[in-house]
Amino acid sequence: MYSAIPEPVSSDTNHQNKKRKVLLLGATGSIGSQTLDILREYPDHFELVGVSAGFSLKKLEEIMKEFPAVQAGGIALNDAPEMLASKKLYRGDNQMCDMIRDLDFDILVNATVGFRGLEPTLKAIEKGKDVALANKESLVCGGDLVLEALQKHGCKLYPIDSEHSAIFQCLQGNRIDQAARLIITASGGSFRNRNRDELEGVSVNEALAHPNWAMGKRITLDSATMVNKAFEVIEAHYLFGIPFDQIETVLHPESIVHSMVEFKDHAIIAQLGSADMHLPIQYALCYPDRMNITEEKPLDMTQTLDLHFKKMDFERYPMLKLAWLVGREKGNRGTVMNAADEQAVELFLDEKIGFLDIETCILEALKNIKNVENPTFEDLKKADSEARQFVRDLF
Amino acid sequence: MYSAIPEPVSSDTNHQNKKRKVLLLGATGSIGSQTLDILREYPDHFELVGVSAGFSLKKLEEIMKEFPAVQAGGIALNDAPEMLASKKLYRGDNQMCDMIRDLDFDILVNATVGFRGLEPTLKAIEKGKDVALANKESLVCGGDLVLEALQKHGCKLYPIDSEHSAIFQCLQGNRIDQAARLIITASGGSFRNRNRDELEGVSVNEALAHPNWAMGKRITLDSATMVNKAFEVIEAHYLFGIPFDQIETVLHPESIVHSMVEFKDHAIIAQLGSADMHLPIQYALCYPDRMNITEEKPLDMTQTLDLHFKKMDFERYPMLKLAWLVGREKGNRGTVMNAADEQAVELFLDEKIGFLDIETCILEALKNIKNVENPTFEDLKKADSEARQFVRDLF
Repeated sequence: MYSAIPEPVSSDTNHQNKKRKVLLLGATGSIGSQTLDILREYPDHFELVGVSAGFSLKKLEEIMKEFPAVQAGGIALNDAPEMLASKKLYRGDNQMCDMIRDLDFDILVNATVGFRGLEPTLKAIEKGKDVALANKESLVCGGDLVLEALQKHGCKLYPIDSEHSAIFQCLQGNRIDQAARLIITASGGSFRNRNRDELEGVSVNEALAHPNWAMGKRITLDSATMVNKAFEVIEAHYLFGIPFDQIETVLHPESIVHSMVEFKDHAIIAQLGSADMHLPIQYALCYPDRMNITEEKPLDMTQTLDLHFKKMDFERYPMLKLAWLVGREKGNRGTVMNAADEQAVELFLDEKIGFLDIETCILEALKNIKNVENPTFEDLKKADSEARQFVRDLF
Repeated sequence: MYSAIPEPVSSDTNHQNKKRKVLLLGATGSIGSQTLDILREYPDHFELVGVSAGFSLKKLEEIMKEFPAVQAGGIALNDAPEMLASKKLYRGDNQMCDMIRDLDFDILVNATVGFRGLEPTLKAIEKGKDVALANKESLVCGGDLVLEALQKHGCKLYPIDSEHSAIFQCLQGNRIDQAARLIITASGGSFRNRNRDELEGVSVNEALAHPNWAMGKRITLDSATMVNKAFEVIEAHYLFGIPFDQIETVLHPESIVHSMVEFKDHAIIAQLGSADMHLPIQYALCYPDRMNITEEKPLDMTQTLDLHFKKMDFERYPMLKLAWLVGREKGNRGTVMNAADEQAVELFLDEKIGFLDIETCILEALKNIKNVENPTFEDLKKADSEARQFVRDLF
């Protein structure tokens, strides 16, 4: 299996000889904003050449004022007013791929959410560019296509998810074939102190109150159902080229240990830190360098502190268990699971379905939509639409 | 400062192309026995060419039967019977250095205890050989001499202490100048649940009951006083070339996190494992490879488990605080502290002094014996004798 991530490097390697041109998709979301913080902090290392945004026109305008040279695109611009018209604006459905085609950049930061992030990932790789990847759907839905493209074009992925960044850091200086197990930690999400009976009739606001991380709505909900953790298992499989039976999860309510690698000699290497995404973004952009970081509440492990770990309860979190089934079946399974979830989360946020209905939507979609072997991108797009429609028709 | 440890390596480096010849000093102790387990496990990787033992003639005979080609030496042999006389036996005070001079070996495993381990470390380096170091006194007493010799002869140290092995592992793939702090964990030893008032009149047996680790008597006692932890701070300074103000300690009663490195970007990398020295020994011998290990109770981080960390209390452990003072003053300070401790521990084990008197011996010896700048090995030997005599005369 082709190694999606860069080989662990010797300490004296340094990719940072020249200023890197960054194209940032999803600039106004949580990961996008924190990426901009890092570009602001290190103007000598990075140049922002383009941004896209899906929703917030106001934030996008602010970015364009702050970084005057930047090109912009995204759905948020579809109804943009005159004042922005002095630049070439990328509008409409295909704007992210058009920016990738037109702009000169070194690395794509893909911080979009959902299936729509897959095509830009593929396009960047096909252009021969590395991708700092926060869009986990690129691998959950199109893992095999992405891996094939990486291998063909000699590109690499730099993980931005905190768990995968942790594993990436723990693997440094070790060969991946020396790893016995990846152990992904899971906070348990907003409802971790409730049993399944207590999930009936929970409200949208309750579901959106994540105990540790401030994140977007979808990922917060996906944490509560552990659909997100299931996706991380699949993502880890593709990123690190590790078989599914060597990937495990453990409940860790503090979210301080971001993940671990157990090696063949039983050494366990863990990465710990505060619940702040600046670190994984910066590591992805600066790898293999580690540079100073501005952080409000850095973790201080010399202080009094308790860490708890609890064996994962798959009865409580049936969506997590799906990861191994869906991941091993391949084909369009990841796409169907993701699309059903994206649609169901939208319905839940609109208060059209209950919290536990999200699980039903996913299970029914997987049951009713046929798998396709070795799907093309078009096959995946079709499965994506089909699963969304299926879920809408369920209620 | 010269880097005592090998630079973190790229994953494809492999030093293990040929069978390595191992000379093992301190073969019958705890570290020595576990080293032999690894040599037994990997006969294609290692050849034992020599062993020494300080005390147990019986165990030494068994080793010589099991590894027929091996040369043997050590104080234990001083009264050895005829039956062993078919080999060249190294006897008397200087036997370890004579073996180093005479035998053909690739790596010295120095698992001796105490000041007597320094000279063999220096002799091996002067012969151009790497040292897998369990004898922390080599660095506590002779750190500057050892570093100078390493630099002159282009040799490296491979740490065997669990804490230093952990730090060594955590540094892989990172440059040492990217490390912000080394955080050494401390179990707190046999009396960690007692305050200082409760230490009056504790018995030898109570002091020898370490909650986590099965080790030799001296190191178990040094854990209770935290003299051992103080030595580890000094050892870390020399091994990793890190200033003393970047070395910290934290109480961690479970001894599961063996130590941590905090980097400039606030990422903390930790190494976790069971309380078993096979791993650090094997890592030192096989570095940078990680090979399968036979272990009775490997740590399983997917199971339910709590880890506790407590801010270090230097009032409770005044010997630990000494590390930074003694380490920064250099000269013969480490040697005096160690010799006073070695002698005091002996007196305590013989029930001639109380537990808290060990601290008094160390403090008084440091107060009364003059420091020497840039000491030679002879100067250190003199300071060692002087401090022992001083402690004997105290009572």
